[in-house]
Amino acid sequence: MTRRDFLNRVGKVGGAVAVFGAMESLGLLSTSASASSFQPPTQGDLALTGRNGKRILILGAGIAGMTAAYELGKAGYDCHILEARQRTGGRNWTVRRGTREQEINGEMQTATYDPGHYFNAGPARIPQHHVTMDYCKELGVPLEVFSNGNEHAFYYQENAGALSNQRYRKYEVKADGRGYVAELLAKAVNQSALDDPLTSEDAERLLEYLRREGGLSSDYTYQGSSARGYAELPGAGDQPGTLGQLHSFTDLLQSGMMNNFSSEYSFNQQMMMFQPIGGMDQIPKALERKLPGKITFGAIVREIRQTNGGVRIVYTTGSGGTQSMSGDYCICTIPLPVLKKIPADFSAEMKNAMNQIGYATTGKIGLQFKSRFWENEDRIYGGITTTNMDINQIWYPSSDFLAQKGILVGYYNFGNNAVALGNMSLAERQAHALAQGTKIHPQYAAEFETGFSLAWHKIRYNEGGWASYSESDLQNYYPILNRPQGRVYLAGEHLSYYTGWMAGAFESARKVVTEIHEQVMKEEPVSA
Amino acid sequence: MTRRDFLNRVGKVGGAVAVFGAMESLGLLSTSASASSFQPPTQGDLALTGRNGKRILILGAGIAGMTAAYELGKAGYDCHILEARQRTGGRNWTVRRGTREQEINGEMQTATYDPGHYFNAGPARIPQHHVTMDYCKELGVPLEVFSNGNEHAFYYQENAGALSNQRYRKYEVKADGRGYVAELLAKAVNQSALDDPLTSEDAERLLEYLRREGGLSSDYTYQGSSARGYAELPGAGDQPGTLGQLHSFTDLLQSGMMNNFSSEYSFNQQMMMFQPIGGMDQIPKALERKLPGKITFGAIVREIRQTNGGVRIVYTTGSGGTQSMSGDYCICTIPLPVLKKIPADFSAEMKNAMNQIGYATTGKIGLQFKSRFWENEDRIYGGITTTNMDINQIWYPSSDFLAQKGILVGYYNFGNNAVALGNMSLAERQAHALAQGTKIHPQYAAEFETGFSLAWHKIRYNEGGWASYSESDLQNYYPILNRPQGRVYLAGEHLSYYTGWMAGAFESARKVVTEIHEQVMKEEPVSA
Repeated sequence: MTRRDFLNRVGKVGGAVAVFGAMESLGLLSTSASASSFQPPTQGDLALTGRNGKRILILGAGIAGMTAAYELGKAGYDCHILEARQRTGGRNWTVRRGTREQEINGEMQTATYDPGHYFNAGPARIPQHHVTMDYCKELGVPLEVFSNGNEHAFYYQENAGALSNQRYRKYEVKADGRGYVAELLAKAVNQSALDDPLTSEDAERLLEYLRREGGLSSDYTYQGSSARGYAELPGAGDQPGTLGQLHSFTDLLQSGMMNNFSSEYSFNQQMMMFQPIGGMDQIPKALERKLPGKITFGAIVREIRQTNGGVRIVYTTGSGGTQSMSGDYCICTIPLPVLKKIPADFSAEMKNAMNQIGYATTGKIGLQFKSRFWENEDRIYGGITTTNMDINQIWYPSSDFLAQKGILVGYYNFGNNAVALGNMSLAERQAHALAQGTKIHPQYAAEFETGFSLAWHKIRYNEGGWASYSESDLQNYYPILNRPQGRVYLAGEHLSYYTGWMAGAFESARKVVTEIHEQVMKEEPVSA
Repeated sequence: MTRRDFLNRVGKVGGAVAVFGAMESLGLLSTSASASSFQPPTQGDLALTGRNGKRILILGAGIAGMTAAYELGKAGYDCHILEARQRTGGRNWTVRRGTREQEINGEMQTATYDPGHYFNAGPARIPQHHVTMDYCKELGVPLEVFSNGNEHAFYYQENAGALSNQRYRKYEVKADGRGYVAELLAKAVNQSALDDPLTSEDAERLLEYLRREGGLSSDYTYQGSSARGYAELPGAGDQPGTLGQLHSFTDLLQSGMMNNFSSEYSFNQQMMMFQPIGGMDQIPKALERKLPGKITFGAIVREIRQTNGGVRIVYTTGSGGTQSMSGDYCICTIPLPVLKKIPADFSAEMKNAMNQIGYATTGKIGLQFKSRFWENEDRIYGGITTTNMDINQIWYPSSDFLAQKGILVGYYNFGNNAVALGNMSLAERQAHALAQGTKIHPQYAAEFETGFSLAWHKIRYNEGGWASYSESDLQNYYPILNRPQGRVYLAGEHLSYYTGWMAGAFESARKVVTEIHEQVMKEEPVSA
C-alpha cells in the first residue's frame, strides 16, 4: 500500500481531519517550526526526583546563550552568563544613534543617525518557518513584514553586455526572461522536438502553462505583457498605458540578471519574511528581560577548564581584573574564530576541528538619507536591489513607509568584496558605497546625511559572519564540535544546519539544554 | 541614433544624473505613480483671474467623489457631496463589530467580530506603483505590507488527477514545476533540438540560468532542491533535514496548480503590496476629515437635471422627503448599474453606453477564528491559499501577526461562483465556506467563531463589484462615458484603465477636476 493509498483510505473513513492527523504522523506536514519536538525542562523534572538545579555557566549573551539560560531557568537551573560586551545580542545588533564600535585595528566610530532610525547590522530577516517566529511570540516581540522580494527594485549590471550600466526593474527583467524561455520550450513542444515526448494531453497542458508563465501571445511567441510594466502607466480616460521596448533574449542572457531570480526561491529566503518592529535587537532585549541579574557584562573569557566534576571559567573584567567562576556544566557559545584562541581543556581532535572551520567574511553599511527618494521618486517600498558591483545589494527599509527620512543598507557583501571594503578606512567605505550606489540612485549625492559601516570579520568577539562549512567539514569536523567536551557543550548557529540564521542559535540552544537536562537526570539525586 | 546611443552619449558628458534626467524625459522611467502629471487647481488660479469658486455638486462620497471635492477645494471651489449611505467610502468598506448591512432582497446582518478585528470587504490591497500610495502619504494614512504572495500558503485542487484533495505548499509546487520545465528545456538545448538554434554562448548561459531556475543537478536533471521545502526540517546537531517525495511532472500538469504561478507576476498584483494600518477605510476617513460639513448623508439621488447654465439634483432623505440642490457643475460617481436607473438628462448615446457595460459579480466572507492556527500550526503568516473550489481563495491576515485571534477571508470569488454563493442565505454561505475551507484547514470546525458575508452585486447603491469592459466596450462605449454630458462629468474606477482598483477612482477624479477647472478658466470671469 503506497502512502497515498493509505491516506486515501484514511480519508474515506475519517474525513479531512483524520487525513491530516495521519499525514502529521507520517511527517508529511512540516507544521512545526522545529525539527526536534523540544520540550523545555520543568521544575517538576528536578523537584519530583529530588534533584536541585545545577549551576550552568554560559559563555556569551547572544541568542544561543540567553535562550539556553531562559529554557534551563524554566526548570530552576542556576544559570549565569559571562558576556564580553556591555550589551546582549552578539551578532544580533541594531545600530542606532550613539552606537559606538571600534573594529580590530580600526578607528572608533559613533553612529549619528537621527533618533528613531536604525539598521540591523547582523541578522535582518526571519523566514516564517523558523523557530525564531515562535520565540518572538513567546517573548512578546511584535513582528512586521520584511520585504525580501520586491519586484519594483532594480537589477544593475556592469561589464555584462548591452544592458550594462542601466537599472532595470526586476519585474521587467523577469517578464522578458520568462517570456523568451517559455517561447523557446513551447516551440520545442509544438515541433515535437523533445527527445522524451510528452503525451498529447501533457503537451497541451504544458503549453497552457507556458502561455501563462511567459505571458505569451496566442501563437506562443513572447511579445511582452503588462507583467513587464509600462513605459507610460495606465490612467483615467484615454490612457490605456504603453508597454516599453522589450529587451532581446541574447542581451538578457549576457547580462546575467536572470541568474538572480532563483535566489528568491531559496527555502530560507522565500516570502513572506519578517522582522521585529523597532529593530532585530528587540529579540535579545526580550530574552535579557527574562534573565535579571544573570549576566555579567564586560567579562572576557581567558580560560575554559574542566575540574573534578565541574567546570571553571577564568575571565577578566575591566575593573575586577582576573577572576574565575565555577559551575557544574558550561555552555559555550563563543564563535569559533575567537574560541579557538582561548586556552581550554579540549581534546586535540576538538582543537583541530575548531581550526578547520572557515567563517564568512561579510560587511554592511547603513546610509541615512534626508528623504525617501526610493519611495517618492522610484516607487520602491521595501525590497532589495541586486547588482554585480562589489556593493552587491541595496536594501530599502521595510518599516516606516511614507516617512520623511530613512536608512538604506548601502552594501551587504561577502567573500572578497567584504574583505576589500573591510580593508578600507571608514571614510573610504562610505565614499565607495555612495559612488557605487549613485550609479543606481543618482539622488544619493544630494540626499545623503550620515553612515555607519562594519566588517564582521573585524568585529571583536566575533571575527566572522557565520560558520561556513564545506561538505567534508560537515562530515569530518561538525560532529566533533557537536559532542560535549566533558562538561562543556558548544552551542550557536555554527552547531546547526541553519548557519548564519538566528534559528540555528535557537535550535542549538534547545539541543544542548535537552542534552544537559538528560545528563542531569541520569546523575544520582542529591539528598535535599 | 538609437535611444541607447543617445543615453550613452548623455552619460559620457553628464554622468548618471544626466542619464536619469534624459530617461525621465524619454518616458523610460515610470517614476511617477500617475500617467497624467496632475496639478491640483490653486486658489491663485481663480483669484488672480477674477473668478469665484463655482458650486460643484458631487454624487457619491466614495474615493472618486471625495477626492474630487478635496482637490477642487484646494482652489476654493464650493463643493457639496450627496451620499446615499450613512458612511463615506462606497466600496472601500471595512467590516467591524456592529457593521450592519441588508443586501437587496436579503436578511439584515450585523457583524459580531471581537473589538479590534476587521476585514476589508471591498478593496484590500494597494500596489506600490499606484497613485493611492501618494494619497496615503498626503493624507497621513500609515501603511503596512499586504502579503499578497506567500510561498507558504497552499494550492488545493479537486477533480484534477492524482494530486487532488490534498493541500500542497506553493513553494513545493513551484520548485517541482519549475524544475521539470527547466530540465525539459535544458535537454532540448543540450541535444540541439531547437529549431532556432542559440549561439553556443547563449546556449551555455541559458543552461546556467535553467540550472539555477529549476534547481537542477549538475547533469541538468531535476531531483528536487531545498526550494521545495522539507518533509523534516533542518535543525541543530545531526539534523540536516530531509526532502519530501517529488511530485511527478504529469501529476503536476494535470493538477493545474502550475497555472496559478503567473497571477503573482501581474503588474497590479506583484509584490510588494500594501494596506492601511487599521483597515482600508482609513483612506475614506482621512478624506472625510478634509471635507467637514460638505457631505449630506442618506441623500438618495432621484433625478439628474441639466438647467440653463447649471445642474439640478433631486434627491430624497429619510427625514426630509424630496429636495433638490443646484450647482454649476456635477461630478457623478454613482456606479453604472445604479446610475442607469436614475432619470437623467443624458443623451440617448450615453444611456445606451451605460446599459452596455457589465459589472463583475464578486463576494467575500470574513470568518473570525479563536486562534490563529494558520500561523501557530500551519506556519502561514499572511498570504493567500488558492483552490479550484468555488471559494477560490483563502486570505490570511497581513496584520497583528502572532496575535490570539484573527479573521480569514474564507472566500473571495467571482462570476458564477459569486452568483451561486450570493444566492445562498447568510447561514448557507457561512456553512459552505466552512465546509470547503475545512478540506484545507481541518482546524476550521473547532476554531470558528463568527462570520459576515457579502455579494457586491446585491449591495444597495453598488449592485456590482467593478466595471468589466470587453475590448469592444472600450472602443465603443468607454469614450462616450468619459465625455461630459453638458455640465455633468462621470468619475470613478469605471472611467479608468484601473477598473476595480482605488487608483482608478483617484485618477478619474483628478481627470474630471482638471477638465472642470479648465472649463471654468475658459468661461467669462464674474465681476467681483
